[in-house]
Amino acid sequence: MPDTSLYGSIEAGGTKFVCALGTGPDDVRALTRFPTTTPYETLDQAIAFFKEQPELPAALGVGSFGPVDPDPKSSTFGHILSTPKPGWSNTDVRGRLHEALGIPIAFDTDVNAAALGEYRWGAGQDVETVLYLTVGTGIGGGLVINGQPLHGMPHPEMGHIFVPRAEGDSYAGKCPFHGDCLEGMASGPALQARWETPAQDLPEDHPAWAMEAHYLAYALVNFILTCSPQRLVLGGGVMHQMHLFPMIRERVQTILNGYVRHPAVLDEIDAYIVPPGLGDQAGVLGGIALAQMLNLD
Amino acid sequence: MPDTSLYGSIEAGGTKFVCALGTGPDDVRALTRFPTTTPYETLDQAIAFFKEQPELPAALGVGSFGPVDPDPKSSTFGHILSTPKPGWSNTDVRGRLHEALGIPIAFDTDVNAAALGEYRWGAGQDVETVLYLTVGTGIGGGLVINGQPLHGMPHPEMGHIFVPRAEGDSYAGKCPFHGDCLEGMASGPALQARWETPAQDLPEDHPAWAMEAHYLAYALVNFILTCSPQRLVLGGGVMHQMHLFPMIRERVQTILNGYVRHPAVLDEIDAYIVPPGLGDQAGVLGGIALAQMLNLD
Repeated sequence: MPDTSLYGSIEAGGTKFVCALGTGPDDVRALTRFPTTTPYETLDQAIAFFKEQPELPAALGVGSFGPVDPDPKSSTFGHILSTPKPGWSNTDVRGRLHEALGIPIAFDTDVNAAALGEYRWGAGQDVETVLYLTVGTGIGGGLVINGQPLHGMPHPEMGHIFVPRAEGDSYAGKCPFHGDCLEGMASGPALQARWETPAQDLPEDHPAWAMEAHYLAYALVNFILTCSPQRLVLGGGVMHQMHLFPMIRERVQTILNGYVRHPAVLDEIDAYIVPPGLGDQAGVLGGIALAQMLNLD
Repeated sequence: MPDTSLYGSIEAGGTKFVCALGTGPDDVRALTRFPTTTPYETLDQAIAFFKEQPELPAALGVGSFGPVDPDPKSSTFGHILSTPKPGWSNTDVRGRLHEALGIPIAFDTDVNAAALGEYRWGAGQDVETVLYLTVGTGIGGGLVINGQPLHGMPHPEMGHIFVPRAEGDSYAGKCPFHGDCLEGMASGPALQARWETPAQDLPEDHPAWAMEAHYLAYALVNFILTCSPQRLVLGGGVMHQMHLFPMIRERVQTILNGYVRHPAVLDEIDAYIVPPGLGDQAGVLGGIALAQMLNLD
């Protein structure tokens, strides 16, 4: 029996919050966006959005920037942990929302929520294991395995893996922790710093894109070899450059060199490495999917 | 209620097979090892071992070299797929054993079996997510998440990820598919080829070991960031060099540079990156754990 309850969602990003109320992608009844300022002001604005709706949702799903504590058994479940975002370290996001709204609240990383949204309603509906990677201001990844977002200690930080440098690339890297990790070499700000041009202004035939495809393809190869996802969904601002997709797919095949003998890689890579089926709403719809997983019965 | 049934196990390696009968690590009633020759001869030898026991096991768990098909819903479940091992491509290992023994048979990769053995009875008993990496003739990894071995398309091949080269290392790499992937740079044969000396003959202060620690530490960092395992268990012949453990742990901390703010990495890394609790029996005991998962009731 389909779940017809009304659910709320918050995509809590470091730059902006997106709040929505609905039952799924075809039935979003209200949606709002506002900039992320202080925790107090921003969470109050989210709370006000839900309070002014005709009815409160049955539950709320929050996908948050991090690092976060996504472990329901932990005493800091639903907190943002030590984060570079000023003022937000150790914010009890879930606690504040629960106190104000009095409804059950699911909580995970923004990228796990997006991976779940894509698994439930987007580009990963037909498979069991979905990896979602966002490439934008930062790089981050979420993984859903048989419908369950992956946690650990406390959760993946896929944007910071290390891959071999592109030939001739002498850029030092922009990550304050690691220098030339993936995020340091391939995020939007890294592109801009290396080429002294905003990513969106680089023409399609600029060598920047072959280099970007190099880093993203090696990252995907490592993800494929490490956790064997059945679909790779690439979102975020940098991936709006749709010409990157064929470049990345070709590189992935070249690097793997026939080693992973699966039709998804060998013959159907156009359907394996894909943009989000939900577009830029993967995260906020994923929040609704998170809330639905609470099994309120 | 503890499961007191008698189970069988086969660790089907590319070099040797290990067969055992028992209920767990404290109760192995019979065990044998023999070289891997042709599929027909080798599987017949395994079948003969179980038939000559006083009673047949309730079920059999097989952890096999690969690549394999570990998906019970697939038509080639339990087959070894296209493998460099001569004569073994497309061998229906599970089918042959089932036909001869007539008992339920669980089937997975050798490294998933080892990860499961460590999760059940070894170094990963107290956590939910265990990654097992073997570093020997080849490099391979298995991952158990909440007691379930991870599959995908068809399963991880962690030994073939790519990491940055060590400074000054001009060795081309030994992997026939990828050249300088992890296995190409850090397997036992790669060590021997680079230094023209068998790994076990290299003294502890030889620069080979700092370089080996570089490659393995970068690999572990990538695994930590990608799938967030709560314990990393390193087995296989090369890891018999126990002096590698402190070198790898230190490098992992240096590379992560405080980014993963978890006590396991920051303060308790000696208990985070560890040798197998079951020693060289992780694989064969993992087969018993695999068989137990069949839930025969």
